[in-house]
Amino acid sequence: MRFGFLGPPGTFTQEALLQVADPDADDLVYYPSAEEVVLAVERGEVERGMVPIENSVEGTVNATQDALGFETEGLVIEREVILPVRLHLLARPGTGLGQVREVWSMPHATAQCRRWLRANLPDAKVHAANSTAEAAGRVAYESGSAAAIGPNLAAQLFGLEVLERDVTDHPEAETRFVVVGHGGTSPSGRDKTSIVAFITEDRPGALLEILQTFAQRTINLTKLESRPTKRVLGEYCFFIDMEGHREDPPIADALEELDRTAAKVKFLGSYPRALGALDAERLARRARSAKVLAGGEEA
Amino acid sequence: MRFGFLGPPGTFTQEALLQVADPDADDLVYYPSAEEVVLAVERGEVERGMVPIENSVEGTVNATQDALGFETEGLVIEREVILPVRLHLLARPGTGLGQVREVWSMPHATAQCRRWLRANLPDAKVHAANSTAEAAGRVAYESGSAAAIGPNLAAQLFGLEVLERDVTDHPEAETRFVVVGHGGTSPSGRDKTSIVAFITEDRPGALLEILQTFAQRTINLTKLESRPTKRVLGEYCFFIDMEGHREDPPIADALEELDRTAAKVKFLGSYPRALGALDAERLARRARSAKVLAGGEEA
Repeated sequence: MRFGFLGPPGTFTQEALLQVADPDADDLVYYPSAEEVVLAVERGEVERGMVPIENSVEGTVNATQDALGFETEGLVIEREVILPVRLHLLARPGTGLGQVREVWSMPHATAQCRRWLRANLPDAKVHAANSTAEAAGRVAYESGSAAAIGPNLAAQLFGLEVLERDVTDHPEAETRFVVVGHGGTSPSGRDKTSIVAFITEDRPGALLEILQTFAQRTINLTKLESRPTKRVLGEYCFFIDMEGHREDPPIADALEELDRTAAKVKFLGSYPRALGALDAERLARRARSAKVLAGGEEA
Repeated sequence: MRFGFLGPPGTFTQEALLQVADPDADDLVYYPSAEEVVLAVERGEVERGMVPIENSVEGTVNATQDALGFETEGLVIEREVILPVRLHLLARPGTGLGQVREVWSMPHATAQCRRWLRANLPDAKVHAANSTAEAAGRVAYESGSAAAIGPNLAAQLFGLEVLERDVTDHPEAETRFVVVGHGGTSPSGRDKTSIVAFITEDRPGALLEILQTFAQRTINLTKLESRPTKRVLGEYCFFIDMEGHREDPPIADALEELDRTAAKVKFLGSYPRALGALDAERLARRARSAKVLAGGEEA
């Protein structure tokens, strides 16, 4: 199978992809943005795509929601993967912390490590890279006084060592990734369902009707976010996640009633809730054997 | 007055600040992150701060919400400013589009111009900078084949010309900024109120009670976003914006009832809804006369 992901190789998104792809059977194809991954799945260039959807250091995550909610038809979330945001200080083997004069990373990753940097490398010059992977690549080929901030996988791919582990200021931060595809998934007994509900009238109580529809059926919402749709002025929508599968009678019934009354409903998928991540050793094995290609017009 | 903002000079946030600050009377003090702006206001290093809060190309905007909702006490939003995300291709005077071989910008800004770049500068190498302002600064001092993607103000500050106007793929995108301070604002007749509602029990219907409290009083919600609080596992909160002022009896009553029943309420401010932006000429005049300083420990 061809599996798209937000690249370049060595990103957190590839780390998430290695949790679910079969490196011996699947081709991993990277794209320069989450939107382009989703559009590549829609036009059939890849069969599935892995993209960040919440709280990532990579790319604007609204881009993923917007691509699924507004720019495509018929794509669904087939799976979710939740990973802690683990950023390490990476350097060429043998480098000591005292030698580091320059730090490379993506600005959003650097921003998450600002306090650590101030306490531990106050005099280092912070350079910007387009991705944590690009930062690691630079450090691999530049002088010994440079280090990168990036995920474990970037160290592996570029032959760097982890000089300091977990240098983020918010160690509790997590990123949620989703696998986007054309198929549905059968109920697993521990599912989530994602929808977008479009509301055309800007009136008090519209959202209330939506929530009553769910509450009457004891459906638990796990996420709710209002957004302007950018299509029609004054049109709003809600991205809603709930516990359960579309084939569960209460959810099927609620979505059907909503679509008939309070809001136009776009189904974004029913899929198993994320479980724990693969351990580091198994992940490293997968990283070594995976075949990685560049996708799209920038290939 | 001392007015903090997310720097460096030449960012969108400074552009937003020039909409409201008095350049002859105020000092503008920049900080390296939105969180640090908010914390500088809390400890009194500056009296007010301007930070992006929704859909920005600069910084993770969750950082602003989290700093207001979880990390500080007693700070309020005093004002909001909404600006269209206008990114231009900037170059040294006299540069032609055909000469551009390198493009500098912040990765999140570049990502918003990807289609334009592919159509108009397919062979240009895209370099990362830590901010759109840093990108403009580089182009000002480097060779004539470089251009930056950034806001108008960055061009003015670094003596660059706008080579191509509005190079974003999503020209409808907007950023919402807020002024954070210690004071309250009196009702203006066209206000918004922001709160965080904390819910400790993860049960169907908790949010419903909150919304019923507002709907019963015909209070219109303009934003609703669920977030984990990161303080206690399973504790959730909702960032809620509504039309009206805290001193309006229905809102005062609703907040009081909520706090007593469904959720602990943290008040984040009542403030006038954003009006239209200043015109470009007036903004340029303010930019020229403003006094700008570096703030905090990185100063």
